[in-house]
Formats: sequence, C-alpha cells, structure tokens
Amino acid sequence: TTKDSTRPTKVQELYVYEINERDRGSPAYLPLSQKEVHSLGDLVPFSNKLYSGNLEKRLGITSGICVLIQHVPERNGDRYEAIYSFYFGDYGHLSVQGQYLTYEDTYLAVTGGTGIFEGAYGQVKLQQIVFPFKLFYTFYLKGIPDLPHELLGTPVPPSPVVEPTPDAKGVQPNAVIKNYTK
Amino acid sequence: TTKDSTRPTKVQELYVYEINERDRGSPAYLPLSQKEVHSLGDLVPFSNKLYSGNLEKRLGITSGICVLIQHVPERNGDRYEAIYSFYFGDYGHLSVQGQYLTYEDTYLAVTGGTGIFEGAYGQVKLQQIVFPFKLFYTFYLKGIPDLPHELLGTPVPPSPVVEPTPDAKGVQPNAVIKNYTK
Amino acid sequence: TTKDSTRPTKVQELYVYEINERDRGSPAYLPLSQKEVHSLGDLVPFSNKLYSGNLEKRLGITSGICVLIQHVPERNGDRYEAIYSFYFGDYGHLSVQGQYLTYEDTYLAVTGGTGIFEGAYGQVKLQQIVFPFKLFYTFYLKGIPDLPHELLGTPVPPSPVVEPTPDAKGVQPNAVIKNYTK
Repeated sequence: TTKDSTRPTKVQELYVYEINERDRGSPAYLPLSQKEVHSLGDLVPFSNKLYSGNLEKRLGITSGICVLIQHVPERNGDRYEAIYSFYFGDYGHLSVQGQYLTYEDTYLAVTGGTGIFEGAYGQVKLQQIVFPFKLFYTFYLKGIPDLPHELLGTPVPPSPVVEPTPDAKGVQPNAVIKNYTK
Repeated sequence: TTKDSTRPTKVQELYVYEINERDRGSPAYLPLSQKEVHSLGDLVPFSNKLYSGNLEKRLGITSGICVLIQHVPERNGDRYEAIYSFYFGDYGHLSVQGQYLTYEDTYLAVTGGTGIFEGAYGQVKLQQIVFPFKLFYTFYLKGIPDLPHELLGTPVPPSPVVEPTPDAKGVQPNAVIKNYTK
Repeated sequence: TTKDSTRPTKVQELYVYEINERDRGSPAYLPLSQKEVHSLGDLVPFSNKLYSGNLEKRLGITSGICVLIQHVPERNGDRYEAIYSFYFGDYGHLSVQGQYLTYEDTYLAVTGGTGIFEGAYGQVKLQQIVFPFKLFYTFYLKGIPDLPHELLGTPVPPSPVVEPTPDAKGVQPNAVIKNYTK
C-alpha cells in the first residue's frame, strides 16, 4: 500500500478565466446580517464557468463560498474571505483560500488538489476584469508533474471585452476538455 | 525555535468509514436559497461518526459544511462543495476540500492536518454506500511518518450492510482509539 | 514560465495575538439552527485584529467562519469547525482549518499561504485566554524562507491582562507593519 514518489518544486503558471454567464443562479447573496449595507454575517455561495486562458476551451466550473468580512466604503467595495475550488473535468481540481477584495487584485493560497493537481501548492493571482462577472487568474503551481499542453495555451490578455470563442461557449466537442465539469 | 526535518513522499493508504447514526442532529439542511428544489444558496453543516476501515474501532467524527452548488435533475442528485475535517482523537485530524456528488464517487484534496497528520497532503476517494448515511473513504496520504498499526487494519469491503462491531458502536474501551473524538 | 526552487522543511515558530476589540461587528452569530441552545446549523462569521506576539505591532486581521458542530454541556462550551485566515499586510496571509473548542486549547492545520507564506504548511496551536476576545497562537511553519525579524519578537506570555502597546492599538506608524491589513 505504499510507493515512493518525488514532489516537483518548479513553478508552473496556469491561466484561467472565470466567467459568470448569468445562467447558473450565481452568486446567491444571502443577507444574513440583516443590515442595510453588506456586513459581516452575509454569505455568498457561488459557481461560475471556467475557461482556459486562451479562451478556446471550456474547462469546467468554480464553486464555493465567499464570507462577507466588511464593507469598505472608502473603496466603494467589500472584503470577502473566499473558500472555493476550480474544477477541470477529468483532470481534477484545485482548492484555494484567501482574500477577495472587490476593488483590488489579490493573491490566494492553493490549499490542495486532485487528479493531475494532486499535491499542488503555491498561490494564485486573482485579477478582477468586470465585477463580478469576469475574472482572470494566474496560478503559480508547485508540487505537480508537468501540466498537459491542452491547458497551457498563450492567454488572451485580460480586458473587459474578452469573450470565450463561440465553440467554447457552445461547448462544442473540439472546444471542451474531457468530461468538462458542468 | 527551528529544527530540521524531512518530509516523506511515499503514499500511505488509510481507510475509514463515515456513518450517520442519526443521533447527532446531522445534517442540518439550511434551505437559505428559499427555492423549492435544492439550489445554490442552501448550506448543509454536518457531523457524523468515524470508524476504522475494519469497523473495529471508533475513531472520532467528521465535521464541516457542504455548500449546495446545483441540483442535477438528470442524475437525480446534487453537487456540493465540501469543506470538512476528519478527527482521530489524540492522533489529530485531516482537513479536506472538494466536490461531493450525491450520485457518484469523487476525489477530494487533503489540505492539511495536525498531530500524526501534520504536513499531510494528497487526496482522498469518497465512495457513497448508503446515501447519505454511510460513506467509505480511501486516503492516499503523503508527507507524514508511518501511520500507527491501530489505524491500518484490513478494511471491510464497502457494502450497504456493513456495520461497526458492537464494541465499536458501543465505544467499549477495547474498541476506541485514545480520546476518540466525540 | 517555470523556475526551480527548494522547499525548506525546518520548523519556524511564529507567535500572534488575535484580539476582538468589539469595533468590527464580530462575531456575527447566525442562529440558523433555530434551536434554543447552540446547535449544528448555526454559523459564525468573524474577523478580529491581529497583533505580533510581543504586542508591539498591529499586523492585520483574522477573517473566516466557524461552523457550530455541537454544544458540549458537560464542558459548558461548544465545538466548532473553524475555517479562516490570518492577514499580515504586505507580507501575505496564512489559511488554517481545524477544531475550535471554546473550553480547551487545540491545534489547527495550516493549509497554505501567500506572499512570504507561499507554500507554508504545518500546524498552529490555539490558546484561548479570554473567551472569545483574546487568543494566542503559536504557528509551527514549514515550507517557507526565514521569517522577517519584524515578526519574530519575543512573545508576551499569554494572560488575561495582556494588551497591545498603546502605539500598536493606535496604529502609529512605528507600530504597524507595511500596509497592515485593516
């Protein structure tokens, strides 16, 4: 029941887009603080679609929860504690945790993964493009074998106008990964 | 305040059963989406009992939360994001995160641990036996010293009829680990 | 997009105080179980202030959520599953998960980090000093470069009367780390 293995420490960058196409009932803003402004006590479960950095492949979904920590009036935004995962169909998943600020880019911790991401650690940069509908992530992954070519295309530079290719958006067979997470 | 150590990379398998004996008020299904079917917004805190794979020892409990991500009508089930821990009395605990699908086995990430599980990483296979009352897990653990013999008995093959031994269920002194988590 | 690195395995201890100064609206106790006593189903988002172990520097905040698992009448307290992060301004953050018992010290798992804590793993000891307003933590961190001197002062021994220095409490420039998390 045991076998030896090694754990790579080189850094591999992985780019993905998270896009809310408003067809998943997400986010579910739960105003449990019962206050007039966003306040500690509010919870925000969410799940959006996940595309490759080159926007040519539908990969899967994100899923998790944001815990509202505080409203930040001077930045006209909010601080959240974010606990969620990125699902890549048959390839597996990555879990992350850290701060999500609606007014600023942040880094989150990669806390683990499965499949080709088993043993992953490192961090991920979250860049907000169109709040809260379009986000760009750069993972800096360690601890895993070389990522498959299919996930590694040159990313489209983040901007408000970027869109997945029509084939990726339409989940055509040539534009999805195997058993992409729905 | 510093000392050197090494981090094992061999894989150790650990088998456990999670059983809901309906005496812990678990799960607490919170229908916060306020929709008629399970929907994003619903939350499910839970805590069940944990037994060794050979069903001869009560180990402790699981505890955590499932975030309902979507109802999957074609599979007559639900997708959850699961964030929880496995407690092993004085031995410590393991934390995990990933997808829990009520209609299919999945893998979750091991995100860390304490005690004999300090520094643990890897993944765990979740097999549903009797939804939602009986689950079988195979941990594939790295990063930790050799597990104690007491946790490593040959597992009873998962089936709907398996039950802990009467001594384990009755938490007799010979059938619990030290300070098993209650 | 790749570079090699090594991952230190020596243990570094880091001491911090978490103090609730009752000015952040925390904790937000959500009695979602709708029961008379604390019960599974209740959720507790929280965010407190974070000070260095020598109480001379304001570092930032904690933020996250506690999931009420069970009331423990014989100990006059509660068991929680705690999922949260410690923010250290420009230095980055650490995420943790594990048990929080209102009546006993516990260890939690370090599940990851960012910035100078990128790649962190290990565990943290939680000591309750004045429930639920003052807590002392000893992190046992691996996987990261040497911590900066500024974070490493000799800790004030935990006791109910300890307080941050007036300069730290008043976030004077000499008593905060760079861009301390607010």
